[in-house]
Amino acid sequence: MSAPLADQLDIVIPTIRNLDFLEEWRPFFQPYHLIIVQDGDPTKKIHVPEGFDYELYNRNDIERILGDKAWAISFKDSACRCFGFMVSKKKYIYTIDDDCFVAKDPSGKPINVLEQHIKNLLTPSTPFFFNTLYDPYREGADFVRGYPFSLREGVATATSHGLWLNIPDYDAPTQMVKPKERNQRYVDAVMTVPKGTLYPMCGMNLAFDRELIGAGMYFGLMGEGQPIGRYDDMWAGWCTKVICDHLGIGCKTGLPYVWHSKASNPFTNLRKEYKGIFWQEEIIPFFQNVTLSKTSTSVEDLYVELADKVRKGLGHIDPYFSKLADGMVAWIEGWRMLNPPKAA
Amino acid sequence: MSAPLADQLDIVIPTIRNLDFLEEWRPFFQPYHLIIVQDGDPTKKIHVPEGFDYELYNRNDIERILGDKAWAISFKDSACRCFGFMVSKKKYIYTIDDDCFVAKDPSGKPINVLEQHIKNLLTPSTPFFFNTLYDPYREGADFVRGYPFSLREGVATATSHGLWLNIPDYDAPTQMVKPKERNQRYVDAVMTVPKGTLYPMCGMNLAFDRELIGAGMYFGLMGEGQPIGRYDDMWAGWCTKVICDHLGIGCKTGLPYVWHSKASNPFTNLRKEYKGIFWQEEIIPFFQNVTLSKTSTSVEDLYVELADKVRKGLGHIDPYFSKLADGMVAWIEGWRMLNPPKAA
Repeated sequence: MSAPLADQLDIVIPTIRNLDFLEEWRPFFQPYHLIIVQDGDPTKKIHVPEGFDYELYNRNDIERILGDKAWAISFKDSACRCFGFMVSKKKYIYTIDDDCFVAKDPSGKPINVLEQHIKNLLTPSTPFFFNTLYDPYREGADFVRGYPFSLREGVATATSHGLWLNIPDYDAPTQMVKPKERNQRYVDAVMTVPKGTLYPMCGMNLAFDRELIGAGMYFGLMGEGQPIGRYDDMWAGWCTKVICDHLGIGCKTGLPYVWHSKASNPFTNLRKEYKGIFWQEEIIPFFQNVTLSKTSTSVEDLYVELADKVRKGLGHIDPYFSKLADGMVAWIEGWRMLNPPKAA
Repeated sequence: MSAPLADQLDIVIPTIRNLDFLEEWRPFFQPYHLIIVQDGDPTKKIHVPEGFDYELYNRNDIERILGDKAWAISFKDSACRCFGFMVSKKKYIYTIDDDCFVAKDPSGKPINVLEQHIKNLLTPSTPFFFNTLYDPYREGADFVRGYPFSLREGVATATSHGLWLNIPDYDAPTQMVKPKERNQRYVDAVMTVPKGTLYPMCGMNLAFDRELIGAGMYFGLMGEGQPIGRYDDMWAGWCTKVICDHLGIGCKTGLPYVWHSKASNPFTNLRKEYKGIFWQEEIIPFFQNVTLSKTSTSVEDLYVELADKVRKGLGHIDPYFSKLADGMVAWIEGWRMLNPPKAA
């Protein structure tokens, strides 16, 4: 089994339960280091199957490590996964939910998600012009007639957003209307989300280059004590896309697929989501129009600037957004503490 | 065999040879009306297989019908197909090259291109936000979590750009470097090209709503007497995309596939293309930045405005662009002559 970049990639898993789902992933994940972020009650002992190389952080660890910035890491919500992004020392991160299993391609072959994500991350992105035959760097494909030659080198890839067979990632209203819908369509494509276009980034099956965009991958304030849930990954997606567009680096979506086994409860989801469903109608135009300082090229600086714009631009919707802006700043302070600049 | 909208769609075919390729398309195309635009020598008799309902225009017909505007229709180049768009009286156009045949889907079933293009045209587009599960209106798919509800009605679809199995649509340099590359990947997806993003629109397998965007589907000045070729469809693609973005209507790409049988000669292609390869490096930024009058909503008016911007914005590259701007104006004059406003 191929295990590319095994020494340069951490797998981050947020969980509240025993990690038996890793048994199915064993042939693929065992060569990699795991960072497990235990959600909720820290006294609960989480069982990790034998033979995996891992470190596990519970709430007590987060408090101990981040001190007075720990509040910025969500509690009782899978948004806590971003703590794993912060403590990692690797260049690449893959994060997956514990209800996701190995999917099969149309030929019946189990899909090696890491191999595909790494391919996506190591080949350039093409955010400035659309290629109708999808990823031009893939074997058997190229840029089509009319694609400007000056753009064919592409740009660095920051994120690789993978998809899900079986249970699609629907919001509560859509889950309720279509309880039996399953995603059975395997679309054999990877593409760059064009510059200036936002996309709904799901955290279930996601890889990114920590050095390029890690400091922007904050999953916000969700779960206990917060008025909103299930927008953690969306928040990170909007922020990182805006920063990637500003920096001229790319976000890809498409392959690889995981098998998403279990639909979450739509009634619980609706309770968590309903404010987000209203708020996103204002949040999205905000992110579509926000501009960042032209001279700034550090993700950390850009993220702090974005926090300020969030406070000013979204604060009128709800006091939550001021708190979220504070959280964004605290996140960067924590990030800087754990990721000091490398000596020149 | 399903023949949707048979009374509302014309099939436009530019050709210089007998249309034996129609035999393979018979089950799909016979219910539709064909408009054949004969390229080159008008004294040559083109054979159309029995049983098809068609009208055929040669150069003499174009001269007779358009008079002093006929020069705007390219001669000895498949760009002449746009004359067919102009004389049609139908709401929808499908245009195909005569070296394209019926492709098969992965299950081995022959693909009904018109059925898929019509589905694409009759369902909305989503240019303002990216849906990671592709066309949300397709059976078994929907908008994913995080997609703003206010955008889920979508907007009208102006164009449906289909793809090609076997010979990919490469430019001459890529053909030369990869003479044996064949497109064998069937990507089971349709998507909207996001607002603000240009794409290379190929005329080989293309459908559009003539009422919505027909007046913008001018294929420019190519072929005999012109310094450039093989940019006819690209030109139409850039112009229509800019106008669609301005009007808030959509352009889709993806399914259906045709089987493109024969690569054109890369040496001939290079001769036709090489100026375009230089010029597009300036043309694309021009189209990426051009803005049209906010109050204008008529495609004809917008196209005339665009002609003026082309003259001013691209004229410095080569005198050709002034002539092309004249051609764009003559095209609209011809369009208005043949498509007078309907009585209120």
